[in-house]
Amino acid sequence: MQLGLVGLGRMGFNMRERLRAAGHDVVGYDRNPDVSDVASVAELVQKLTGPRIVWIMVPHGDPTRQTVEELAGLLSAGDLVIEGGNSKFTDDQANAALLAENGIKYADVGVSGGVWGAKNGYGLMAGGDAEDIERAMPIFDALRPEGPREEGFAHAGPVGAGHYAKMVHNGIEYGLMQAYAEGFELLSASDVVTNVPETIKAWSRGTVVRSWLLDLLVRALDEDPELTELRGYVNDSGEGRWTVEESINNAVPTPVITASLFARFASRQEDSPAMKAVSALRNQFGGHAVQKSDSES
Amino acid sequence: MQLGLVGLGRMGFNMRERLRAAGHDVVGYDRNPDVSDVASVAELVQKLTGPRIVWIMVPHGDPTRQTVEELAGLLSAGDLVIEGGNSKFTDDQANAALLAENGIKYADVGVSGGVWGAKNGYGLMAGGDAEDIERAMPIFDALRPEGPREEGFAHAGPVGAGHYAKMVHNGIEYGLMQAYAEGFELLSASDVVTNVPETIKAWSRGTVVRSWLLDLLVRALDEDPELTELRGYVNDSGEGRWTVEESINNAVPTPVITASLFARFASRQEDSPAMKAVSALRNQFGGHAVQKSDSES
Amino acid sequence: MQLGLVGLGRMGFNMRERLRAAGHDVVGYDRNPDVSDVASVAELVQKLTGPRIVWIMVPHGDPTRQTVEELAGLLSAGDLVIEGGNSKFTDDQANAALLAENGIKYADVGVSGGVWGAKNGYGLMAGGDAEDIERAMPIFDALRPEGPREEGFAHAGPVGAGHYAKMVHNGIEYGLMQAYAEGFELLSASDVVTNVPETIKAWSRGTVVRSWLLDLLVRALDEDPELTELRGYVNDSGEGRWTVEESINNAVPTPVITASLFARFASRQEDSPAMKAVSALRNQFGGHAVQKSDSES
Amino acid sequence: MQLGLVGLGRMGFNMRERLRAAGHDVVGYDRNPDVSDVASVAELVQKLTGPRIVWIMVPHGDPTRQTVEELAGLLSAGDLVIEGGNSKFTDDQANAALLAENGIKYADVGVSGGVWGAKNGYGLMAGGDAEDIERAMPIFDALRPEGPREEGFAHAGPVGAGHYAKMVHNGIEYGLMQAYAEGFELLSASDVVTNVPETIKAWSRGTVVRSWLLDLLVRALDEDPELTELRGYVNDSGEGRWTVEESINNAVPTPVITASLFARFASRQEDSPAMKAVSALRNQFGGHAVQKSDSES
Repeated sequence: MQLGLVGLGRMGFNMRERLRAAGHDVVGYDRNPDVSDVASVAELVQKLTGPRIVWIMVPHGDPTRQTVEELAGLLSAGDLVIEGGNSKFTDDQANAALLAENGIKYADVGVSGGVWGAKNGYGLMAGGDAEDIERAMPIFDALRPEGPREEGFAHAGPVGAGHYAKMVHNGIEYGLMQAYAEGFELLSASDVVTNVPETIKAWSRGTVVRSWLLDLLVRALDEDPELTELRGYVNDSGEGRWTVEESINNAVPTPVITASLFARFASRQEDSPAMKAVSALRNQFGGHAVQKSDSES
Repeated sequence: MQLGLVGLGRMGFNMRERLRAAGHDVVGYDRNPDVSDVASVAELVQKLTGPRIVWIMVPHGDPTRQTVEELAGLLSAGDLVIEGGNSKFTDDQANAALLAENGIKYADVGVSGGVWGAKNGYGLMAGGDAEDIERAMPIFDALRPEGPREEGFAHAGPVGAGHYAKMVHNGIEYGLMQAYAEGFELLSASDVVTNVPETIKAWSRGTVVRSWLLDLLVRALDEDPELTELRGYVNDSGEGRWTVEESINNAVPTPVITASLFARFASRQEDSPAMKAVSALRNQFGGHAVQKSDSES
Repeated sequence: MQLGLVGLGRMGFNMRERLRAAGHDVVGYDRNPDVSDVASVAELVQKLTGPRIVWIMVPHGDPTRQTVEELAGLLSAGDLVIEGGNSKFTDDQANAALLAENGIKYADVGVSGGVWGAKNGYGLMAGGDAEDIERAMPIFDALRPEGPREEGFAHAGPVGAGHYAKMVHNGIEYGLMQAYAEGFELLSASDVVTNVPETIKAWSRGTVVRSWLLDLLVRALDEDPELTELRGYVNDSGEGRWTVEESINNAVPTPVITASLFARFASRQEDSPAMKAVSALRNQFGGHAVQKSDSES
Repeated sequence: MQLGLVGLGRMGFNMRERLRAAGHDVVGYDRNPDVSDVASVAELVQKLTGPRIVWIMVPHGDPTRQTVEELAGLLSAGDLVIEGGNSKFTDDQANAALLAENGIKYADVGVSGGVWGAKNGYGLMAGGDAEDIERAMPIFDALRPEGPREEGFAHAGPVGAGHYAKMVHNGIEYGLMQAYAEGFELLSASDVVTNVPETIKAWSRGTVVRSWLLDLLVRALDEDPELTELRGYVNDSGEGRWTVEESINNAVPTPVITASLFARFASRQEDSPAMKAVSALRNQFGGHAVQKSDSES
C-alpha cells in the first residue's frame, strides 16, 4: 500500500522501516534532508496516487497544526490524513474540521512502544470514521505487533478517540512507573533486603507485578545496580497533564496518576517554595532565633 | 526431594500438586482431613527423614506462630523450617530465634502468583542463610516458573528479607492496580472513547503499559464489559499497610502506594465521616437553612 | 458614594445591606422583583450619575458574561465595571477587552466570607488598574472587615489577579477543610479519645490549629455532635478545579489541594468504577469462583 | 497550688513563668543548673508536700520513660504524675501501669502553642481519670488561654487520650500548613498575582481561610517577602507519622495529612531514588543513548 509519511524523527524513521519491511510503499518527508525521500510536503503529495493517505508524525502543537494546514491545501477530496503524533484530543476536532472543508478525511492514532516499537511493533489506538480506519488497516496491521489484531490495535471511537486513549494510556503509564519507583526506593532505603536488583529481577516471571516496564527496570538495574549515573529529574510530556485535566473535567478521582505527575514536578525543583513556606511557619512557632526547628508545638 | 507442607488451602494445595508433578515427595498436612496426607503435624514430621524441610503455608499471624511453635517441639537440630505465607517480616526474626533454640534453621519465602501459580509457577523471594536457601533449591526450582532461575527466584537477603520483598511487591501491586483502575474509570466516564474494553485490550501488545495485570483486566472486561456485576468494594491485606508503615519508618515518600491503600479504605465506607465534616463546614458558611450547599464562599 | 449592584442573591443582597449601612447610595437590580430596586439594568444605569461604578454579583459563566455585554451597551466611557462574582480569572481578560472598546474600565474582585460577611465584613482581593481600584476604595472599605485595610483588602495585581487570588484562596480552603475533616474522622474512628466534640472545641484557643474554620466545625458539632444528620456528599465549585488546573499549568505540585478535590469527587459516587476494576483484578487472581476476594497473592 | 516541673527547656521554662505569674508555687528541675530550682528530681520531690503533682516536660521516648521510672521510686501512693511532653499515646499505658504499682496516679496532657503559649496560653488536651484531671485543674486553668475553659482545655478521655488528641492535632497542623504552602507556591509561580505577600495578608480578616497559622505566614512574609532566606527543608516530629500509622490501623483515609508528611520527607532528599528509577525507565524507552529523555512513548 502507498503511504506518505511526514516526520521522520525517532518514531517516524522507525515506522518507515517497519512499513517498508512489510512491503508498503512509503514516501517520507522530513525537514532533515539526510533522511527525507522528497524535498517538500508538496513533492510528497505529488508522488502519491489518489486517493492518498498521509500520516503525520511531527511534534504536537504548532508543527502538527502547520502540517495539517499545508496538507489541506495540497490534498484532494477523498484523501485521508492520519495524525499519529501525541496531539491533544481536542486538537483533532479542529484538524478534522479544517480538512473537511476540502472533503479530506481525518483520523487520529495514538502510537505506543517507543524505540522498541521498530522491532516489537506499536500498540495503536485509532479514532475516526469506520470506513477511514478500514481503509488504512493494512498500514495499521504492519505497524502493530504480531498476534491477534485486537491485542495491538483498536478503533477506539470517533475522531479524537485515538489520542484520548493514548492520553489515558500515558496517564496509566505514569502511575505504573511511579509504583515501581516507590517500591525500588523503599527496598533501597531499608536494609532488610540486601540484594535489591536481584530481588526485582526475580519478579520477572510468575509474580503479579510482572510487566514490560518491570523488564525495563531490570535492564536498567543490570546496567547500573544503584542507578548512580542518573539524576532523579524527570520531565513530563503533555499526556500526563491532560489526563489529570480530563479527570477533573469528568469529576473522576485519579490520585495515583496525579501523584505521579506531581512527583515529576517536584523532581525538577531545586528548592520547593511550598516547603519554604512550611519551614517559615515552623520557624514562627519556634521564635525568630530558630532558623531550622526540629520540633512541632 | 522430600518436603513436609503444613497448610493445604488455596495456595498450599496447588503447590503440593506442582511439587509432586516435578517429582518431589510431599507430605502435606491440613486441618481439613479431606486434603491432608496425615492426621497431625507430628505424624508429618515422623514421616520425613532427617534432615527435614517443612514448609509452612497457613494464614499469617497466630496460625503461623502456632505452627512454628509446634514444629519447634517436633523437629531436630539441622532441620529447616520455611515460612512461605504472608507473614510480616518482623515476625520472621521471632520465628527464627525460637527455632534456633533447638538448632532448627529458618528461612522465609514470599510467594506470588495466586491461583495462576499452579500452572505458571510462582515468583519466589527468599530470606535466610545461604546454605539453607541452597539446600531447599530443588523445591524452589520446582515452584518457580520455567526459564532462568533469576527471573523467578531471588535470595533477597537474611531472615525476613523474603517477606520484606513480598511486602514491597504487594505495595507496588496496589499501585499498579489503582493506575489501571483510574484509567479505566476515566475512559468510562468520558464519552470520547466509545469502545473502552476494545481499547484496553489493544494495549496487550506493543504498548508501554502491557503487563500481566493488564491481561487480567482484559479477561475481566471480556466477561463483563462494564463490570456491572461487581461492587467497588475492595479489601486490603496486611502487605499494603505494612508497606506504607515501612515507608514512614524509612522516610520514603510513597504517594502512589498510599493513595491506592486509601482508595481501598474509602471503597469500604458507606458514608465518609470526613466528608460529613466537610459538608458541615460548608453548611456553616451557607447558614443553618442550607443542608447541602452548592457554593463556596 | 453611588454604586450600581447587579445581582441580589445570597451574597449581593447582604452586600447591599452592608454598603447602605455604611452610608453608600446603592441601586440594586435583580431578576427577582421582590428584592430589586429597579426594573432593569438599563434603569439601574440611568439612575446613576457618571462616572458610574457598577458591581456585578451574578453566577459566573454565562450570566456574568451576559451582564458585561449588556453593560457594554449601556455605560459610557470612563465608567467602571467591577466583577465581584466567582469568575475564572481567564474570563476577566475577555470582559475587560469588551468593555475597553467603549472606553469602559474593568476591575475584578474576589470576595470571601459567605453569609458571615454581612456582619464580619468580606475579605477582598482586587485586580485592575491602580486608578480604578483607588476610585472604588470607599466601596471596598465599606465591604471589608473593620481593622487595618491591608488585613482585609489587597490590590493583588492587574485585571484577573483578584479572581486568581480568590481561586487560590478557595483551593487552600479545600485543603484546610479536608485536614480538619480527616482529623475528625480519625478521632471518631479510634476509641482512644472518648470526647471528640469537646476535644475539638478545646482547640479553639491557644493551639496551632485554631482558625475560623475550626470555629465553624465547633459550631457544627455543638449542633450535631456526631454529624448524624449530614451525608458525606460534597459538591465542588469551579475554584478548586481551576486551582489544580493552574497548578498543572505552572508545574506546581499541589498534593493536598488536589487530594481535597478528589475526596469531593469520590464523595459523590455511589460506587466507584475504579474500585470495581481493582475488585475485578483481585477476582482474577483468585479465580472465577471468587466474587469478593479477601486475599492478595 | 504546688507543682513539681521536670524539664525546663523551651516549653517547660515558659510554662513555669506562666504558672508562677498565676500565683502557683512551682519547683522546677532541669539538667541545666542555670535554670533549675533544685539539684535533682529527688530534691524536687522532697520540696513538695503530698499529695504531690509532678509535671514531666522532657523529650519523648527514653528521657520521658527514665523520668517516669525515677519518679516511680521517689513518689508516694496518691501522688500524681502528669506527662505533658509529646509522648506517643501508646507509651502512656506503660507509664501509668508502672506508676500504678506504687499507687501513683498518671495523666497525660497534650500541650499546643509553642513559644507563643507563654503569652497566649496553651491549648490543653488531657487523658486520665476524672478525679486526677479535676485535682490538677488549677494548673490547667493557669496554663490555658483566657476565655471559657472548654475553648482551651478538654478532658479528652482515659489515659492516652490527651496525647492521642495532640497527635491528631499535629496531623491536622501538617495538613493546614501544607495547604497554605501550596497556595503560596502557586501564587508565586504564576505571574497573574503580582503582590503575593499583600494578597496573603489581605486574607487575615473576613475570609474563610483566616487562622492563626495564616497570621504566622503573614509575619514571615513581612520579614522576608519571598522567603529567600529559608531552605525548603522540613523536619518532621513523631506526631505526623503516628497520625498516619493510626489512620492505617483504623482504615481511615487521610490523603491530606499523609501528603503533607510525604512532602516533608521529599523536602529532605538531595535526590530522589524513586525519580531516578522513573528516569531510568524513560531512558529505557528512548534507548541507551538518551540520558535524559523529553518524551514519553
